[in-house]
Amino acid sequence: MGSSDYESPHRVAIPPSKPFLTSFASTVKETLFPEDPFRQFHGQPASRKLVLGLQYFIPILEWTPRYTFHFFKADLVAGITIASLAVPQGISYANLASLPPIIGLYSSFVPPLIYAMLGSSRDLAVGTVAVASLLISSMLGKEVSPVEHPKEYVQLALTATFFAGVFQASLGFLRLGFIVDFLSHATIVGFMAGAATVVCLQQLKGILGLAHFTHETDVVSVLGSVFEQVHQWRWESGLLGCCFLFFLLLTRYYSKRRPAFFWINAMAPLTSIIMGSVIVYLIHGERHGIEVIGHLKKGLNPPTLTELSFGSPHLTTTIKTGIVTGIIALAEGVAVGRSFAMVKNYHIDGNKEMIAFGMMNIAGSCTSCYLTSGAFSRSAVNFNAGCKSAVSNIVMAIAVMITLLFLTPLFYYTPLVVLASIITAAMLGLIDYEAAFHLWKLDKFDFLVCISSYAGVVFASIEVGLVTAVTLSLLRLLISIARPKTLALGNIPNSTIYRSIDQYPNAAKIPGVLILQIDAPIYFANANYLRERISRWICEEVEDRLKTTLQYVILDMSGVSGMDTSGITMLQEIKKNVDHMDLKLVLANPRSEVIKKLDSSKFVESLGQEWIYLTVDEAVAACNFMLHTCKLDPLDCHV
Amino acid sequence: MGSSDYESPHRVAIPPSKPFLTSFASTVKETLFPEDPFRQFHGQPASRKLVLGLQYFIPILEWTPRYTFHFFKADLVAGITIASLAVPQGISYANLASLPPIIGLYSSFVPPLIYAMLGSSRDLAVGTVAVASLLISSMLGKEVSPVEHPKEYVQLALTATFFAGVFQASLGFLRLGFIVDFLSHATIVGFMAGAATVVCLQQLKGILGLAHFTHETDVVSVLGSVFEQVHQWRWESGLLGCCFLFFLLLTRYYSKRRPAFFWINAMAPLTSIIMGSVIVYLIHGERHGIEVIGHLKKGLNPPTLTELSFGSPHLTTTIKTGIVTGIIALAEGVAVGRSFAMVKNYHIDGNKEMIAFGMMNIAGSCTSCYLTSGAFSRSAVNFNAGCKSAVSNIVMAIAVMITLLFLTPLFYYTPLVVLASIITAAMLGLIDYEAAFHLWKLDKFDFLVCISSYAGVVFASIEVGLVTAVTLSLLRLLISIARPKTLALGNIPNSTIYRSIDQYPNAAKIPGVLILQIDAPIYFANANYLRERISRWICEEVEDRLKTTLQYVILDMSGVSGMDTSGITMLQEIKKNVDHMDLKLVLANPRSEVIKKLDSSKFVESLGQEWIYLTVDEAVAACNFMLHTCKLDPLDCHV
Repeated sequence: MGSSDYESPHRVAIPPSKPFLTSFASTVKETLFPEDPFRQFHGQPASRKLVLGLQYFIPILEWTPRYTFHFFKADLVAGITIASLAVPQGISYANLASLPPIIGLYSSFVPPLIYAMLGSSRDLAVGTVAVASLLISSMLGKEVSPVEHPKEYVQLALTATFFAGVFQASLGFLRLGFIVDFLSHATIVGFMAGAATVVCLQQLKGILGLAHFTHETDVVSVLGSVFEQVHQWRWESGLLGCCFLFFLLLTRYYSKRRPAFFWINAMAPLTSIIMGSVIVYLIHGERHGIEVIGHLKKGLNPPTLTELSFGSPHLTTTIKTGIVTGIIALAEGVAVGRSFAMVKNYHIDGNKEMIAFGMMNIAGSCTSCYLTSGAFSRSAVNFNAGCKSAVSNIVMAIAVMITLLFLTPLFYYTPLVVLASIITAAMLGLIDYEAAFHLWKLDKFDFLVCISSYAGVVFASIEVGLVTAVTLSLLRLLISIARPKTLALGNIPNSTIYRSIDQYPNAAKIPGVLILQIDAPIYFANANYLRERISRWICEEVEDRLKTTLQYVILDMSGVSGMDTSGITMLQEIKKNVDHMDLKLVLANPRSEVIKKLDSSKFVESLGQEWIYLTVDEAVAACNFMLHTCKLDPLDCHV
Repeated sequence: MGSSDYESPHRVAIPPSKPFLTSFASTVKETLFPEDPFRQFHGQPASRKLVLGLQYFIPILEWTPRYTFHFFKADLVAGITIASLAVPQGISYANLASLPPIIGLYSSFVPPLIYAMLGSSRDLAVGTVAVASLLISSMLGKEVSPVEHPKEYVQLALTATFFAGVFQASLGFLRLGFIVDFLSHATIVGFMAGAATVVCLQQLKGILGLAHFTHETDVVSVLGSVFEQVHQWRWESGLLGCCFLFFLLLTRYYSKRRPAFFWINAMAPLTSIIMGSVIVYLIHGERHGIEVIGHLKKGLNPPTLTELSFGSPHLTTTIKTGIVTGIIALAEGVAVGRSFAMVKNYHIDGNKEMIAFGMMNIAGSCTSCYLTSGAFSRSAVNFNAGCKSAVSNIVMAIAVMITLLFLTPLFYYTPLVVLASIITAAMLGLIDYEAAFHLWKLDKFDFLVCISSYAGVVFASIEVGLVTAVTLSLLRLLISIARPKTLALGNIPNSTIYRSIDQYPNAAKIPGVLILQIDAPIYFANANYLRERISRWICEEVEDRLKTTLQYVILDMSGVSGMDTSGITMLQEIKKNVDHMDLKLVLANPRSEVIKKLDSSKFVESLGQEWIYLTVDEAVAACNFMLHTCKLDPLDCHV
């Protein structure tokens, strides 16, 4: 009866349901191996599979055969350039992490070598990073004072590095790299700017030559601590610091305007250190309140496997520090690697990168290195210097090795205030006003996430900022699921196209027919809302007396990509509701997964297969056919 | 140049961007007021608005004018029936909550009256509920022993009820009722079954007449505790309990098979109590190890406003208990109200229901009542007895009042073991095997959620079960966002329709054109995945040498309901990637919100407005036109 008279031109396919294990396996594969790394192994002989497998896990085997002398020249220049940045940054960031400066140098030796073997980025320069360094000192410093128990503190930092490495490598091995994706760009912009602000504030200690300083990182405590000691500010130190800061900012400004002179910016930190050391040596600054690094031990990284303190009473904090710093370092490193790969148009496998980062940190923690990652500023210099492959990291490591073996005595007179200026200059570059403004222009919610992340870091603590931003981002996702849009569709004149009346004001409603588009998978989180919202659409349409009496409700299911049992129940209830009002429910274009579930729950049977159409246009045609026939012979048509 | 030669029949509309505050306000309205409660106020005079407003907040004002004597007769019968259930259940559940039995009776007097005024369900029967009762005793019992400090324990329970009420009412006032939606049906099925199992196990104490019992609720501790005391089992008590349990289950089985005799099931608990009391009185059971209720105070609810202990050292636990039990009670009550409203086809406003529940618990906590909600079993009896409105709750309250005033001495000899049997019988009805099987058949993931919820409650604790299930459900939502489907589309023969090749095997690919459908909003959580996945689609297509050389990649954006800044970046990267491969990117049917963002981020400009089409069909037509022209004159066509 009813629509069975009308010949629908196309049928909606109900694919046969696959066995549970098959569909489960394919879901797992799509979730964890979206890039299908095993594709290249298909149909290869066993020996070739072994070679491919080795090349997969150790990328250096893959690209060395193609490596040329021409490439090496470029990498040599880039490697020396980044080494000149790595040495001062290494010392500075170790200082930020409250670790002995020599550990910063050690950390620029072993990890780059490991990364060169395992990493897949050609542009990433490995080294210590500011935010993770600050996090280490703020999280571990609360447990063990780096001043009172320096040895124990170093042990904890190495152990945290070990856990960070294990965590990073496991994320990679378990193919859970997508967890890093939940740190959105907006979160990272706000977080980085906040962390940079906090790090700059910490540098006031070095620039003003203060002896005591708060352990808190928030702006209120730090400024409070600075102004409490206003009588202990050392003008000599402050003057020197400001001069070098000015010099560093000036060189950066100049290099930015003339990219060919990027090396001026790259060399500036090393120049500052040399100039600073010379000045202090000449004026005997160490006697005028300018602190210097002092004695640095000669020689390569001593092994520290036995120093890892797994039995420490602070193990929980150490593990927590490892995980937090590990994920922050990952987020930065992977993002940096990806953005340069994008520019040069090659592919980076996030999970493999995580394994590489993890391995280099595990190896690092056994050889006196603390947490390293792909640092943004250093990688940008590497890229600008024309690096071709990870060999530039090897060159840098060798340069650092030479420094460690022969040049450490030269840093005796290096003033701490210069290090503070180097950190401050680097951090000011991380505050990305333009990105924040861009977010405000494009997406207000992303801007809110960014600002809360910033405010959280600056006014509370680094962890609070991060947790706030991630929670807000997740909330947005959940709200987008919990409150999906339903749109009324109309016919674009002279076509078979149906589009939202909001977006296309010329789209015309069909008399007697309400067409609704549902815009999201129907899950428990939105099933109630959708039921209410669809009822409201129908009621509003029925109340609107000017129209022809409503007879058909067409649900365009094109956007419904999935459904759970609550979704099925909700559709059943809508059908009941629509039946009560003496209307007829029609479905258009249900997708594979949805129609399978509707079929096995007997919904298709109760609705009638003939009320499910492939397109909105065909559904409307059927409704119009029925409406027309009913006008001629109303008795025959009551469905 | 390029496609500008081709005349596209329709343009994609770019709606003018609204001022920030307007769009913000409409988002807030859609999120918090999806059912638009203010619609009826539009264009009414002020006096009418006042009346409508009062009727909105106090629904009894709305329906009493239409109330008839015919309705009253039905409600009288239903009310007396549920009262006969309310009295034994009230005493039993108070026992389960480790509260004095009289508090269970008090709780069936005040709250139903409040609900009758404020509630919008016609079928809900208000009373104490088993799961919330158990939760109160397990959460508060850890802090204060109900045996050693009975007075303090009662105060805490009343205070927790107060907080539960405040929490429920605030959820309603703040329009945050959708939080309850995050407890999916699958979660509730598993949770209820688990709670029922746990409650049944607790009844072993009463049935076996044990004096000591563990405070834990998990199956291992409880069974351990039961079998440790195997020599203290009281056979008299056990025999009586089993007999009554058998009787209750038998009546339920009979009533289920013959719905007209629902009253047999409804009367069975009261009958058991009477029979039990008579038996104990006759055989002097209280001297043979059968515990009895003992003396119950005559009289109505004493006021307890001053008993609320806000200054207690256990305030945190009390608040936590209030929130957890409040949300569980809400979830049960709202779900019960909704399902009966669905059967009788009237509308229930979730947020208003929450306010009603909250108010009745706040009022209850000031009048010696502990937490109440809409109980499933009682409401089902109410519905079967033919209730017409909330007046049946008033009748029940009056019946309970009479009991309190005159009949309490009759319960002196009521054996506790009968109460245990009543609870056990009620709980066995909550274990819904069929629903679990249904979940397994329709949706494996929902089944997993259900089972973990059950296992968590039974083997760990009620809170663990709940948290596990909610986490799993949220994880599913997040995975569905993080791993959206991308589908290759093909042309359904002899039509302008493009559908997934997986679902419609007869859909034909277009030579030289790859059509991909993206199935979800593009947010930070999936932008990286989508970029990788789309690249893989393109690579696979390019590698497949049998095809015509790939020239165009059409992205069908119909399913992309939203986009954040990461999504925009991802599209820009895809474009760069596609450009690198000398292919051309084409968009089909971008939605209002998406095209606005693409426009303001200059993506539309960089892609060329002429490469954005209203339908996939028009995009394919344009590509085919270009492919054809290129074959004729390849020099002219390189875009």
